[in-house]
Amino acid sequence: MPSLHPSIDNGITKGDPNFSGGKLYCRCADNKVEVTLSANVLHNHACGCSKCWKPRGALFSVVGVIPVDKLSVTANAQKLRIIDSSAAIQRNACKECGVHLFGRIVNDHPFKGLDFVHTELSSERGWQEPQFAAFVSSIIEQGFDPKGMDDVRGKFREVGLQTYDVLSPPLMDAIATYTAQKSGKPHL
Amino acid sequence: MPSLHPSIDNGITKGDPNFSGGKLYCRCADNKVEVTLSANVLHNHACGCSKCWKPRGALFSVVGVIPVDKLSVTANAQKLRIIDSSAAIQRNACKECGVHLFGRIVNDHPFKGLDFVHTELSSERGWQEPQFAAFVSSIIEQGFDPKGMDDVRGKFREVGLQTYDVLSPPLMDAIATYTAQKSGKPHL
Repeated sequence: MPSLHPSIDNGITKGDPNFSGGKLYCRCADNKVEVTLSANVLHNHACGCSKCWKPRGALFSVVGVIPVDKLSVTANAQKLRIIDSSAAIQRNACKECGVHLFGRIVNDHPFKGLDFVHTELSSERGWQEPQFAAFVSSIIEQGFDPKGMDDVRGKFREVGLQTYDVLSPPLMDAIATYTAQKSGKPHL
Repeated sequence: MPSLHPSIDNGITKGDPNFSGGKLYCRCADNKVEVTLSANVLHNHACGCSKCWKPRGALFSVVGVIPVDKLSVTANAQKLRIIDSSAAIQRNACKECGVHLFGRIVNDHPFKGLDFVHTELSSERGWQEPQFAAFVSSIIEQGFDPKGMDDVRGKFREVGLQTYDVLSPPLMDAIATYTAQKSGKPHL
């Protein structure tokens, strides 16, 4: 069984509901980029998409969101660059070590106002644990053998995570609601 | 609770594994378009997308697939027209009553070779029953009140159907495998 993610492979450690934030660091030996989060993350989840940063050897990223006003770059901001400014989520990565410090949405989008972050870049404990696994089938597009998918979904279930090939139902409903509101549907 | 679909609202009737096909008819009073299927359908499912034909008052379509060589138009083919020839699935509908007789894929696509059909257009019994519910959150985009989504997903579960906001995991894996093969991934 390949690694899903270091924070999932050996079971999940529950977060602390009273945890109030902490600092993320890139993986450079010195002059680390420092990002300060003044709240816990929400909707933390494993993600199989090809664009989210993941640690070497892991099939999945683990990524959560936080309101933009709870995030600030507090050291070495000059080392950040945007990976792809045309992507819906502009991933701000360290130019030197490549780690993504935060992803920001700048265009109209149902999740605009939320930044995407990886709490494994913090040494603090208490961050919300992964709540579900998203975009699971997408790992096949990146070269994973489809024969292994039952094992992958089975392992997620074993550690208590539901698996989805898009986002979770509440998030998919939120996206659909946003789409309906933009098109002026009568119910909304 | 609004109608999900007439074949689901009061529980599901199991199909006959030995059933070998039958005829579909449009809903015109006379000169009905007749489509003959020489096999049962596969992957029959409820679908919440906006493009599949659904009976009046139903929130969901019920649609299955059949290999193209098992489908033939056997009467009044001249009444068929393609709703949108630019869509991935070209839905062939009766010009008069509007019912979709079959949907065909003509461009490269993971499901090319399969036609999409609605077995409720047949008076025969034995067709495969719905296996799951797909694109559930999409009904919101068509004006369904998001507050009702728990009831909708709950009702599907009550009749024994899993709900997904895309297709089912095996079909999503098949699509991802097709995508990986097209891009020449090493594992495949």
